[in-house]
Amino acid sequence: MLFDNLSIIDGELAFKNKKATYLTTKYGTPLMALDIDKIRGRMREYLSAVKTYISEGSSVSFASKALCFTGIYRICSEEGMGIDTVSSGEIYTALNAGFDVDKAFFHGNNKTDADIEYAIDNKIGYFVADNIEEVEKIDAYAFSKGVKQKILLRITPGIDPHTHSAINTGKVDSKFGTPIETGQAIELVGKVLSYKNVTLCGFHSHIGSQIFESSPFIFAGEIMLNFIKAVKDTFNYEVKLLNLGGGFGVKYVETDPEIDYTKRIKELGDNLKRIATGLKINLPDVILEPGRSIVADSGITLYTAGSVKEIKGYKNYVSIDGGMTDNPRYALYQSAYTVLNATKIEKPCDYVCTIAGRCCESGDLIQENVKMPKPTRGDIIAVLCTGAYNYAMASNYNKIPRPPIVGIENGEDKLLVRRETYADLVSLDV
Amino acid sequence: MLFDNLSIIDGELAFKNKKATYLTTKYGTPLMALDIDKIRGRMREYLSAVKTYISEGSSVSFASKALCFTGIYRICSEEGMGIDTVSSGEIYTALNAGFDVDKAFFHGNNKTDADIEYAIDNKIGYFVADNIEEVEKIDAYAFSKGVKQKILLRITPGIDPHTHSAINTGKVDSKFGTPIETGQAIELVGKVLSYKNVTLCGFHSHIGSQIFESSPFIFAGEIMLNFIKAVKDTFNYEVKLLNLGGGFGVKYVETDPEIDYTKRIKELGDNLKRIATGLKINLPDVILEPGRSIVADSGITLYTAGSVKEIKGYKNYVSIDGGMTDNPRYALYQSAYTVLNATKIEKPCDYVCTIAGRCCESGDLIQENVKMPKPTRGDIIAVLCTGAYNYAMASNYNKIPRPPIVGIENGEDKLLVRRETYADLVSLDV
Repeated sequence: MLFDNLSIIDGELAFKNKKATYLTTKYGTPLMALDIDKIRGRMREYLSAVKTYISEGSSVSFASKALCFTGIYRICSEEGMGIDTVSSGEIYTALNAGFDVDKAFFHGNNKTDADIEYAIDNKIGYFVADNIEEVEKIDAYAFSKGVKQKILLRITPGIDPHTHSAINTGKVDSKFGTPIETGQAIELVGKVLSYKNVTLCGFHSHIGSQIFESSPFIFAGEIMLNFIKAVKDTFNYEVKLLNLGGGFGVKYVETDPEIDYTKRIKELGDNLKRIATGLKINLPDVILEPGRSIVADSGITLYTAGSVKEIKGYKNYVSIDGGMTDNPRYALYQSAYTVLNATKIEKPCDYVCTIAGRCCESGDLIQENVKMPKPTRGDIIAVLCTGAYNYAMASNYNKIPRPPIVGIENGEDKLLVRRETYADLVSLDV
Repeated sequence: MLFDNLSIIDGELAFKNKKATYLTTKYGTPLMALDIDKIRGRMREYLSAVKTYISEGSSVSFASKALCFTGIYRICSEEGMGIDTVSSGEIYTALNAGFDVDKAFFHGNNKTDADIEYAIDNKIGYFVADNIEEVEKIDAYAFSKGVKQKILLRITPGIDPHTHSAINTGKVDSKFGTPIETGQAIELVGKVLSYKNVTLCGFHSHIGSQIFESSPFIFAGEIMLNFIKAVKDTFNYEVKLLNLGGGFGVKYVETDPEIDYTKRIKELGDNLKRIATGLKINLPDVILEPGRSIVADSGITLYTAGSVKEIKGYKNYVSIDGGMTDNPRYALYQSAYTVLNATKIEKPCDYVCTIAGRCCESGDLIQENVKMPKPTRGDIIAVLCTGAYNYAMASNYNKIPRPPIVGIENGEDKLLVRRETYADLVSLDV
């Protein structure tokens, strides 16, 4: 099967040796389960690799927008991870978990005045400032509080997405950051260095997601190291941190490549060292910000099948009791997922069907052309690799409550986020 | 301006004679405001038109998936509207408002066993049963409760979407309903008539959204009336209700056509009468289920502008303090919206920009190539026609709280849904 935490017990799918029916009987469906051991393992792998192959001061921040709830920040704290936050709401949630936000980076193309004040009041480690207006606001508020705030600047390395098709947020035309290509980035640095209440610690770039090779990161790293050298040459100011954003890809379906994260990080480290030496600059400490590759393949969603509809001469539809409300990624991006009939896991996969969500919307599908043993109403349907950007993007469209999150660790299953109730759904109504 | 509830007061945009700054100072941003007078007017227009031009027994159900909160069901109740619900959560919300769900239709391609029990326990008016498995479940549970449950069957009229490009849910290949074309629908009716605890009251079809002409509804109506005749001829059973689903389109931008709802409904009624007469059947009472055209153009969303970024040789980006979390329709469908600079409403529209949301996601845009007076940080940006499928589809992605909904009626503004707090965002976390 796709992942080694999946097995077959008593003829049905098991996740971490918990039979699907054990989980669904105990917690109901739809249900998201997380392999906490695997999440911790991935965090350790990233951390160990950056420290071993880049530098001891290098680090890893979990991009918590991929999966944000109180418990995940507790795990980050226990594992010595940094975090990448993108809103006051994420910072609040991290604080709620007792996370020391001195290890947090605060990202985003549009931090409001209230966000800036909230983050400084709560002693955020670093702002990743997106633009000059933001730096002005940070400087002014830091001044009013009598503090000096550490910042990075988000820079767009200007990588043409046609060079690497997976790359799409590092290009010049982006709502994020300030471009090198147009000369605006170096100009920005000059302005920022004149502010008294911010300390420019480094730069941040982000080039996209689902990157399986190290070469796009090396390419971005080379541009950023050249920029660091240009800043040094222009202003006699050498920054100490390079945040390369993002992380590596994840295997969603059999046709996706396997990825050896340690190997990729070693390739990245070796090349960054070579480039820095060539440029005669010190290698800055490097921050990686994986989100998807920390949590995606540790998640599984279990649904109950409803109607199985065969439209003669057209298609077969299997409806489930969730859909775009808990996983909008097919509706948004036509994302590929592996879908299994957990109940009939040992039967032949000889039935082709579209897995449809329960929302009153044609586009509410989870996957098309799935091959599985033909389901009947009541079968448990499992969607794999749902740990990232599923719960985080969940809505109450059609007034459908959000599912619970159950963590499984050391053989024990435990509720981390409870199921939303109907009463919760009207709790904001006046 | 696009709508007559917009005006200019003291050089800024006003909605229902409330200055933008009055609303944003009182309630903050992002903020959704609703013109309740206009919503009531639209409900009355629909109701009056179907009763005048179709039949006295005809009616209108608000498709509450378009905008679902307790207060909207109170308005439906006061206006004598029926409702179209699609989940137990919507039924719960309607009950929370004191709505008599005897006037409710319960839709959806996948009602769970729990949904069916909940709806029958709460004396739902009609199930719009999607498929035979569902009818079996309804019949069995109704039997166990000693009741007879009224149902409609959802039928796919099999209209080729190429005939009318706006039509996309009435086609044969759909997760919804049972198709006529394949012979499956008439077969389904035969089975359903054999069940003792359900009463087949009629049929439901839905052909799509944003339909500005009456002809697609007339075309669907003709197919459905022919089907009603076929059922009468085959089983000597004549149904009394035809639910044509959906509603008419809404003007989002200047280039969308104006629509006279009464005129369209008269055209529909005249044609349905003609067709029924030709078929020698009684004209059934007709139900329309508008959602978008009841609430969309009564809604406005007010944001605060953040960074204004000019990428030389590329594009200008204006970031706002909301985005795909409160309005995912551009991310999902690249929907067109009218966007105004409320603060500088009298200045010339000589600045072209992309309105970007605040989420850490490249696709989080509200609209591209907007022409408006150049904004500066702090300006109020208004997005028009946001009443439908905005709040209803809102998420907490990036841990961004959902905005409040403020209703304006008879000159008074009133909070209908309060703003979500950070504490709310972690309320499900264990």
